Amino acid sequence: MEENKTNVIFIMGVSGCGKSTIGHMLSEVLKIPFFDGDDFHPKKNVRKLSNGIPLTDDDRYNWLVFINKFAKEQLQKNSCVIVCSALKKAYRTILNTDIHSQAKWIHLVGSFEQISERLNKRENHFMPPSLLRSQFDILENPQEALEVNVSLSPTEIVDYILKEINNKSEFGLFGLGVMGKSLCRNLANNGFKISMFNRHVDGVEEDVAKNFKADYSELSQAKAYDDISAFVNSLQQPRRIMLMVNAGKTIDYVIEDLLPYLSENDIIIDGGNSNYKKTKERNEYLKTKGIHFIGTGVSGGEEGALKGPSIMPSGDKDAYDKVAPFLETIAAKDKNGLPCCTYVGPEGSGQFIKMVHNGVEYVEMQLLAEISTILEKFGQNPDQIANTLEAWKDTANSYLLEITIDIFRKKEGNDWLVNKILDKAGNKGTGNWTTIASAELGVPSTLIASALFSRYISFYKEERIQLNKNFDKVNTSEFNVTTQEVLEAYQLARIINHYQGFKLIAEASNKFEWNLNLSEIARIWTNGCIIRSTLMEELVEIFKQTANILTDSLLIKTINNYKSAGKKVVAQCVLNDISTSALSEAIQFLNGITTAYTSANIIQAQRDYFGAHTYQRLDDPSGKSHHTNWN
Amino acid sequence: MEENKTNVIFIMGVSGCGKSTIGHMLSEVLKIPFFDGDDFHPKKNVRKLSNGIPLTDDDRYNWLVFINKFAKEQLQKNSCVIVCSALKKAYRTILNTDIHSQAKWIHLVGSFEQISERLNKRENHFMPPSLLRSQFDILENPQEALEVNVSLSPTEIVDYILKEINNKSEFGLFGLGVMGKSLCRNLANNGFKISMFNRHVDGVEEDVAKNFKADYSELSQAKAYDDISAFVNSLQQPRRIMLMVNAGKTIDYVIEDLLPYLSENDIIIDGGNSNYKKTKERNEYLKTKGIHFIGTGVSGGEEGALKGPSIMPSGDKDAYDKVAPFLETIAAKDKNGLPCCTYVGPEGSGQFIKMVHNGVEYVEMQLLAEISTILEKFGQNPDQIANTLEAWKDTANSYLLEITIDIFRKKEGNDWLVNKILDKAGNKGTGNWTTIASAELGVPSTLIASALFSRYISFYKEERIQLNKNFDKVNTSEFNVTTQEVLEAYQLARIINHYQGFKLIAEASNKFEWNLNLSEIARIWTNGCIIRSTLMEELVEIFKQTANILTDSLLIKTINNYKSAGKKVVAQCVLNDISTSALSEAIQFLNGITTAYTSANIIQAQRDYFGAHTYQRLDDPSGKSHHTNWN
Repeated sequence: MEENKTNVIFIMGVSGCGKSTIGHMLSEVLKIPFFDGDDFHPKKNVRKLSNGIPLTDDDRYNWLVFINKFAKEQLQKNSCVIVCSALKKAYRTILNTDIHSQAKWIHLVGSFEQISERLNKRENHFMPPSLLRSQFDILENPQEALEVNVSLSPTEIVDYILKEINNKSEFGLFGLGVMGKSLCRNLANNGFKISMFNRHVDGVEEDVAKNFKADYSELSQAKAYDDISAFVNSLQQPRRIMLMVNAGKTIDYVIEDLLPYLSENDIIIDGGNSNYKKTKERNEYLKTKGIHFIGTGVSGGEEGALKGPSIMPSGDKDAYDKVAPFLETIAAKDKNGLPCCTYVGPEGSGQFIKMVHNGVEYVEMQLLAEISTILEKFGQNPDQIANTLEAWKDTANSYLLEITIDIFRKKEGNDWLVNKILDKAGNKGTGNWTTIASAELGVPSTLIASALFSRYISFYKEERIQLNKNFDKVNTSEFNVTTQEVLEAYQLARIINHYQGFKLIAEASNKFEWNLNLSEIARIWTNGCIIRSTLMEELVEIFKQTANILTDSLLIKTINNYKSAGKKVVAQCVLNDISTSALSEAIQFLNGITTAYTSANIIQAQRDYFGAHTYQRLDDPSGKSHHTNWN
Repeated sequence: MEENKTNVIFIMGVSGCGKSTIGHMLSEVLKIPFFDGDDFHPKKNVRKLSNGIPLTDDDRYNWLVFINKFAKEQLQKNSCVIVCSALKKAYRTILNTDIHSQAKWIHLVGSFEQISERLNKRENHFMPPSLLRSQFDILENPQEALEVNVSLSPTEIVDYILKEINNKSEFGLFGLGVMGKSLCRNLANNGFKISMFNRHVDGVEEDVAKNFKADYSELSQAKAYDDISAFVNSLQQPRRIMLMVNAGKTIDYVIEDLLPYLSENDIIIDGGNSNYKKTKERNEYLKTKGIHFIGTGVSGGEEGALKGPSIMPSGDKDAYDKVAPFLETIAAKDKNGLPCCTYVGPEGSGQFIKMVHNGVEYVEMQLLAEISTILEKFGQNPDQIANTLEAWKDTANSYLLEITIDIFRKKEGNDWLVNKILDKAGNKGTGNWTTIASAELGVPSTLIASALFSRYISFYKEERIQLNKNFDKVNTSEFNVTTQEVLEAYQLARIINHYQGFKLIAEASNKFEWNLNLSEIARIWTNGCIIRSTLMEELVEIFKQTANILTDSLLIKTINNYKSAGKKVVAQCVLNDISTSALSEAIQFLNGITTAYTSANIIQAQRDYFGAHTYQRLDDPSGKSHHTNWN
């Protein structure tokens, strides 16, 4: 075990499996104290037991809490071995409380016949078969434990355990890019034993893992590999391997590279921005190979990954439970100290919500860019823009607002750095996918599409310069808005953005039967991720009441307050040739979704006219299709 | 042959293949006159030939034109047989001029050895082998002809020809929905011999083809089937089968149903709104089976399909040539009398441009819906709106404008029908696909996305009614715009719409190396299709000069003229809570694409800040990636 970390080794199993023997031997070899869980029973329980009265789960509760408390105290000083049958998952959950990352579970397993035979051989010991049978009946096999079969000799068992827990890593990280490296350091800082892998590419990627390990003291106990087989073999079973490689075809190649070395029940975690449909396919494919697959969004960028990202895992719930101690420990914590990591749902739901997260992020970034253009139009220089945005922190704080303030303040010599950056915005696929998902699912995510297309427009830099010369930009209008009005327009657009993002998630949840919890999703986005904000904090509570934030009375009031400023800012920008497509679309959308009777009747009439597509009638609630010969 | 149609049977092949023999026999059996092409040579040619001087193609030109003219006159009265070697494609093109649909080509084929032997057996005839060899050298095998091998006896040859041309249909139509039926009638009205198929579904689709045939006199010669094998066997080879079935998986099922009965070189034409990626896959799949595949867009709705649709075929160019006489005959004609049907390009390019056509159509429809909302706001009733739109025909005419006028005029009792239509707009996939293609190809088709999302918003009718109650709609502003200004805003948005649509086509053409001709595409959209308009007529000429219509000096002037009205209308609508997302987005886009320096620099800085995504610098033309430690 790592020198800088104490552990408690829990040895569990049914009566007669040999817990005490193995526990004592381990205690001796490792030079750490041995404790028998049964010695901690309160007097009440001891009395019951000596009178032959079976314990209830209520009886056990205080006992288990006590053992857990004892273990915690013990861990302050030293590692230890504790034996305890711990047959039910609920018992182990109590024993694990707050010491998840330090608890090592060993499960001694054997068949009913094996254990019966062992019991009958013991001197002065008789256990009726019915009692043993009942132990097998209540045994809930643990997911996280190292299983060792009792048919081995005690020495063999101890050797095996020592080899596994002493030398093998608990968690493997595959792919040491910016995010992979940060996650490794985060895991190591939290005391986890990890193995790290990066491929070898002659002259391009050489000794990446080894050099990375050498660079950071927290990685002194981590193992570094560029050989897949050695990497996989360095991991405790069931193996937990997190992929941090480029999304797309690469993931499939990596999976194929890993498969020959994996064993049944090993777990692969894809932490990249994979397409949610692909995650579902991979999940199904790996199921046929006996391997579990978790697709998880990870947000927070380089720094978030290091200090605590927001993590959005999905897939098999049982498999999630086996990786939860790791992911939940390294995740950011919300204001109540809970991890910004939760089991999102089945299939690719985690990757779906990460995709939407990024779509919402696109819009939040675009809105800040548009706001900046307006403030510049006021004549503010970057420092002044930063000061304006600084003042908005009281009402509109968010991580993106904060970094935008830093950006505007950054100078290079006498000029602001921001003035020197080429205005062609890149994109890596998730904004694009969110727009596609919107189109496919029939959900009007107009702001995400608008933000995506603004990036695309920015990419036509040469054409923009050429066309700029062809068209008049006459600013005949007075530009008559205040910074307060700009702030209100911005806040209004942000509310619409979050409405649309969560709407898309809710519709996907319905369609794919994912049963997603919108409030929990908002909660894990309150820290660690790029779109954390005070608004997101508010949404955690709102989503406990309603899935549609536009029915929340406080938000309705806010929107009604902001709307006239929003309208004014957009109208003035239009008249002054300032492109603010996202701010504008927010107003358009709000008008659209709050219009009881839209002009879609005209479109239905047109479709019926030229294509006989039929229409429904307002005065025919049966929903029957009608057709008219129009001309 | 059909009783109501005359035909000319051209019998072609190298010297000695037996053209005259077979021609005379056919003439006798069919009781129609026989003509030998050689008898039509002008004196000049006869003189040359008798002096042993070979004819040039120039010499042949007038001769072939004369035969064609003669055939045309002959066809006024009666069918006939004409024999003529017609070895080159160019010769046959002249002979076919204007009588494409009435010309039946028979090609008598044999190997060099077969023909040599036949020639040597003839009395009083000697042809040096070199002369025959030169005939084989210049022979360009025809695509459209019925090939008959000269190894059969003359009687067998004549029987085979009679069976093929007498009893078999030239063109098969599979699927008798609204569009399929209209195309059948169109083909029959143009004198083509067709077979029609519709599946049998007990109690749902019974005797569809048979009943359809009985309903229309023009179908008296058409053959009706509900058995696939009989349908396929009723067609001349190479078979031409056009599918008019629901796009999607159905197409694949139908292809599998047909395959067992098809022969090599048969042609399947998919006339549905299939996804262009699928068309490419089907093309490749069918190539492995020796079957040609043409994916074609067909636009015009029920009436267009009957009277002349716009047709956008793509795939194998050789296969297109075999179906061109049919498609080009039934297509609408442009103002110069040319068919609104052209070979678009390889793979799924025809289906791609049809998809974009529909995207542009979505926007044109949405703009008319938004305009109507504004005119209604003026207090105009549907008749008055129709009158306003009627007056716009001078400057902004289009098919969609025309039908919208009809729609507003339509009354039911004392009320206008349009007032009774439910405002939930349907969609059948192509607008959705265009938005997806935009996102995938990195092209900002903002208006198509906006029009699509407006339909999606309309679909949330119940939510709209609910939210309508929650939000204030205070019309504090005066609504101060004129109908002329609305017209100008509308026209401006239409130009942007067409710019975006053709931009998407141009970018796809570049990416997939389709080499599409934008002017030709605009031309086949000037008639027959839903988006035909005077603007489209103008674009035909503009695209001959430039691929980017925003560089056309006349359009630049127009836009600069319209822009202030456009801005005013949009600003006033925003202030008055009128949702006009497409009109608004047109202005936003115009501002974006004509802005030399956008705020995308902020987005690049943000991306570099949280994700180390790097940025490029204005002062570093090398395009190198830069990274900054921002905080």
